[in-house]
Amino acid sequence: METIDLRSDTVTHPTSAMREAMANAAVGDDVYGEDPLVNQLEQDAADMFGMEAGLFVSSGTQGNLVSVMTHCQRGEEAIIGDVSHIFKYEQGGIAALGGIMPHTVPVQPDGTLALEDIEHAIRQENIHFPYTRLIAVENTQGTLGGIPISPDYMHEVTDFAHDHDLKLHVDGARIFNAATHFGVPVAEMVRGADSVTFCLSKGLCAPIGSIIVGSKAFIDAARRNRKILGGGMRQAGILAAAGLLALHDMTKRLQEDHDNAHYLAESLSEVPGISVMSQATNFVFLWLEEDAKLSPSEFAAAMQDQNIIISPYPGSERKFRCVLHYWITRDKIDTVKSAMEAVLS
Amino acid sequence: METIDLRSDTVTHPTSAMREAMANAAVGDDVYGEDPLVNQLEQDAADMFGMEAGLFVSSGTQGNLVSVMTHCQRGEEAIIGDVSHIFKYEQGGIAALGGIMPHTVPVQPDGTLALEDIEHAIRQENIHFPYTRLIAVENTQGTLGGIPISPDYMHEVTDFAHDHDLKLHVDGARIFNAATHFGVPVAEMVRGADSVTFCLSKGLCAPIGSIIVGSKAFIDAARRNRKILGGGMRQAGILAAAGLLALHDMTKRLQEDHDNAHYLAESLSEVPGISVMSQATNFVFLWLEEDAKLSPSEFAAAMQDQNIIISPYPGSERKFRCVLHYWITRDKIDTVKSAMEAVLS
Amino acid sequence: METIDLRSDTVTHPTSAMREAMANAAVGDDVYGEDPLVNQLEQDAADMFGMEAGLFVSSGTQGNLVSVMTHCQRGEEAIIGDVSHIFKYEQGGIAALGGIMPHTVPVQPDGTLALEDIEHAIRQENIHFPYTRLIAVENTQGTLGGIPISPDYMHEVTDFAHDHDLKLHVDGARIFNAATHFGVPVAEMVRGADSVTFCLSKGLCAPIGSIIVGSKAFIDAARRNRKILGGGMRQAGILAAAGLLALHDMTKRLQEDHDNAHYLAESLSEVPGISVMSQATNFVFLWLEEDAKLSPSEFAAAMQDQNIIISPYPGSERKFRCVLHYWITRDKIDTVKSAMEAVLS
Amino acid sequence: METIDLRSDTVTHPTSAMREAMANAAVGDDVYGEDPLVNQLEQDAADMFGMEAGLFVSSGTQGNLVSVMTHCQRGEEAIIGDVSHIFKYEQGGIAALGGIMPHTVPVQPDGTLALEDIEHAIRQENIHFPYTRLIAVENTQGTLGGIPISPDYMHEVTDFAHDHDLKLHVDGARIFNAATHFGVPVAEMVRGADSVTFCLSKGLCAPIGSIIVGSKAFIDAARRNRKILGGGMRQAGILAAAGLLALHDMTKRLQEDHDNAHYLAESLSEVPGISVMSQATNFVFLWLEEDAKLSPSEFAAAMQDQNIIISPYPGSERKFRCVLHYWITRDKIDTVKSAMEAVLS
Repeated sequence: METIDLRSDTVTHPTSAMREAMANAAVGDDVYGEDPLVNQLEQDAADMFGMEAGLFVSSGTQGNLVSVMTHCQRGEEAIIGDVSHIFKYEQGGIAALGGIMPHTVPVQPDGTLALEDIEHAIRQENIHFPYTRLIAVENTQGTLGGIPISPDYMHEVTDFAHDHDLKLHVDGARIFNAATHFGVPVAEMVRGADSVTFCLSKGLCAPIGSIIVGSKAFIDAARRNRKILGGGMRQAGILAAAGLLALHDMTKRLQEDHDNAHYLAESLSEVPGISVMSQATNFVFLWLEEDAKLSPSEFAAAMQDQNIIISPYPGSERKFRCVLHYWITRDKIDTVKSAMEAVLS
Repeated sequence: METIDLRSDTVTHPTSAMREAMANAAVGDDVYGEDPLVNQLEQDAADMFGMEAGLFVSSGTQGNLVSVMTHCQRGEEAIIGDVSHIFKYEQGGIAALGGIMPHTVPVQPDGTLALEDIEHAIRQENIHFPYTRLIAVENTQGTLGGIPISPDYMHEVTDFAHDHDLKLHVDGARIFNAATHFGVPVAEMVRGADSVTFCLSKGLCAPIGSIIVGSKAFIDAARRNRKILGGGMRQAGILAAAGLLALHDMTKRLQEDHDNAHYLAESLSEVPGISVMSQATNFVFLWLEEDAKLSPSEFAAAMQDQNIIISPYPGSERKFRCVLHYWITRDKIDTVKSAMEAVLS
Repeated sequence: METIDLRSDTVTHPTSAMREAMANAAVGDDVYGEDPLVNQLEQDAADMFGMEAGLFVSSGTQGNLVSVMTHCQRGEEAIIGDVSHIFKYEQGGIAALGGIMPHTVPVQPDGTLALEDIEHAIRQENIHFPYTRLIAVENTQGTLGGIPISPDYMHEVTDFAHDHDLKLHVDGARIFNAATHFGVPVAEMVRGADSVTFCLSKGLCAPIGSIIVGSKAFIDAARRNRKILGGGMRQAGILAAAGLLALHDMTKRLQEDHDNAHYLAESLSEVPGISVMSQATNFVFLWLEEDAKLSPSEFAAAMQDQNIIISPYPGSERKFRCVLHYWITRDKIDTVKSAMEAVLS
Repeated sequence: METIDLRSDTVTHPTSAMREAMANAAVGDDVYGEDPLVNQLEQDAADMFGMEAGLFVSSGTQGNLVSVMTHCQRGEEAIIGDVSHIFKYEQGGIAALGGIMPHTVPVQPDGTLALEDIEHAIRQENIHFPYTRLIAVENTQGTLGGIPISPDYMHEVTDFAHDHDLKLHVDGARIFNAATHFGVPVAEMVRGADSVTFCLSKGLCAPIGSIIVGSKAFIDAARRNRKILGGGMRQAGILAAAGLLALHDMTKRLQEDHDNAHYLAESLSEVPGISVMSQATNFVFLWLEEDAKLSPSEFAAAMQDQNIIISPYPGSERKFRCVLHYWITRDKIDTVKSAMEAVLS
């Protein structure tokens, strides 16, 4: 019986079409700029985002690190959300490696950063202060449950950044989920932004890789920063072959995942001992009730026995995150529901 | 007419006794560890704080930077207050130079960091997270107005740090003001802490210098970090001569400054157009009323014409900070009151 | 007509077997440690090198950076060759990102670092000096032309490092070429070393990837450092599938490349206007004589017209590097020879 | 009997005039730019060096670190001498704190860096290379024995730097000794340089402090970098008072130290068991012959018994450095000679 892995959309494996494309990929040495599929992928991504240029990187973390290091020099400051991926899940790389000061502001329940909080965080010119250079927003907001942030806010924060002579970076690991939610093109979602990172893995199913898009000058500088991190790869066309399918095909089917997330939330709302905390885009957060028949670890183990992987979200043992994606089809959701009912009844 | 400078206790100039001591100081080359007065000052400070060893540094900022760099390596994290001096006024040095991630938690109105906020900020062992290594508290808390933090809280947060395998650093730039406020020795204020920085300048009137105290091993490592910052000085005994008087004599008279702060607050509460926002230890915060006769800049200029320097506190143009110290005597406070009445009536 | 690319073995594209393996690879999420082929590749590599553990990284540069950062903290020093890849071709990453001081010693004509030079470079305990932590040697030595370094020297420098309480890192991007040259297993080449990086791309034909091997504790720490660089990848099994073939099969055929390099050198020694400067392992360096019929750029262009890519080596426009590999077969060498004769006669 | 300390001119203590000046110094808060003597010292130094602005720092190490950090950002490279103070004696600060790659070239016997070596070290534009930004030369060259470098070379290397779009920094810790040797003003010694650090301590006898001079824009940026290091000091006028005497008076008497160095070398050349290796400006290097009556440590101890401090130079136990300065008068040299004769005969 096939395992149903609900932990994250990072577990997605490549589709058959991707496997075939990888097997037949024409390749070149990308360090020399000669890999045709990488070049095509980078340009296609840039075009789709309304930007000049793109850069293939090995992960979303690398995309964010390269972007922030390209915007900020040693001793400069970036304003980021206090539960953003950059602050919480990237090992402090911007400070550790880049010498960049993170200045956190609270992420609001809707995933945004309040402009007044940002304004308060911007440093004046003063010998005691670092220079503020960057605002980074994350869309969809992962830690809070895949919350999509509206194009209106995105434009507002971008204008706000530019009005204050700051750059605006979008950690758009799942920006296509946001675009799907609002029914607008990604180019419209990030209009005016100075850089965007998005992932080809996760919901788009490519095995490896993310892309940074921005101006030509920015991407040229970012390419150097990718290189210093050891992120330059040789015959990366193998990965770009899958990436092109992720970019062009998989981005069109995300509504299905959102619908499935909704369906999962509805289904599980009937299961005793479990309550649905939130559902947004392809994320569902569950709460294992204190009076549930099983403890959180017993619950996870019992589900595992049913070949279903679900695990507590870091920070709260009763909170469980389910992330929907290409490989979690309706019938599997039904299986999940039945299994939960069985173990909790 | 002598200028009355209310902006900060950093403006204090040395006393006559200090000047004489400096002129007659026996000196040696401190990089060789041969300056007798520096050695004495470092040891006396350590003794007074109940620590093994001390290190003379050129500023409070350097004391904090050296301490945090000694506790934390590249890629480690320090939990600090969101309005702490380390976060706000040190140009992001711990990140920029040390590669250390600052993790801010809100400073409470009483100057403390809530233990539950700290607990929430401590990272678990996870490949996505930096290692948390340090908690830093500031006493008295400067940005919030010289608020003294009680020995009880200090002991509690120290124990809390150690229970979580973390180090505890005290930014005690004005720790003698706190000790004076609570009527306990500084050794009691910081009992169990892993390092403390305090300033010989500011309220203690030495022209230059701060001291770090800690274990012998810590100070040995800190001495190397001072050196890499270029903070090693040669015949520093000149400064240590003044520092010894600051440490032994000036620390005993701080109640006078606190009394004067109280007196200033009381005096000014009668001045129309000005209200007293807060007073703690040697700090008084004033608010220039919206309906005052003068605008904030006009008010500052008018006071300047009276040879009184007072200026808006960064972040709010109607907020004015007055800091009391050795050179602001009662008669000068009366002068200040008269001047304010004159310019605002 | 197929292009013959002589510039580097980095241009190798994957074999048919690799493509098939990638297309059919079982995959998992390697950030969770669940990718079966990555796990197998890391363990197989460790076993082959006589080490406890392995780590897949995206490039040789990343392998070196992660290794040096894992051995050395901020403010520590690494002794490296003055024409080593780490010093010359990695953008200064160890200093820029790791805060690690590079201390160069001259690479000898035989590719080694003289032990007396290393000894001279080791710092004593002194407050003015960084701590020396690491010696890194490169085998085969790329900049000097693929020179293989003997197991005897490798053991000697490893013992020397340990006698001086230092770690020994081997940049073994092409260590299998060295092992092939000396006819000894790689485990014997690097016996006692604290870490080794080698490349699956280059002569081993995998499209992407390198591996670090070392002790379990070292690799655990290195895995964190890979993560902070954004080098953690998801379904990396796609790449590991090719890597396993590189590791197990392609390492056995390198003598053929060495023989071909010898054959190329012999063939070209008869071409007028060209002289062979050196040949070692799979490298041949050529010199375009001053009295050759064409200038260096004309020569490269004329060869390009024949679909042969050969380009001046950085630093000297008359020096041309040819690197032999799987895709440069004997008949292509004959084609190269004929083409050179044609353009230069 | 007064101790005669020959180890370094860093051991100089302040003159009576300096002590008096310090005792009477008018002071202000230099962090606010309000210390009158600091302002005067910085401007006087700038004027004397033909530069726009100056910055008081606590040490030569800090002066170099601030300067190199101001010229170079994270990931950029500085070309420096392989026995320069920056490379050897500053704990690797430019790499550790600044993320700056040191690229060493050999210091020639005459203290210069060969232009062809520098040229070879300059990186081309290439994604594998850091950007070269700076050349630093040291004058006089300390490690090689106080060798003065001619104005001609200084101008040549400055022009060379600018021709290659690089900045030129002079570590002029003892630049006044060089200027004295060549009989030219310091402004002429460093004409065209982008920054110069020189020390007020050492031969100029001020207890603490060095100065950086450069353009106004450079010094503004350097002032921020001083601040982040914690090098901003409050009532630094105490030190500036001594610094002004060092700058204006002590710089005029250095020929006396050079003459005394010559006299010492001549005197000791007659002592059995000792040979004079070199003498330049205020430095004399001695060699304790293998057949001397005492071992190096016995020799140092015997001299210490005579109240004369002389110690082996790091790296060679038979090599002893003597540095002449204000406090080593002719009669003390005679005492030294007699003492050496006594202990070695």
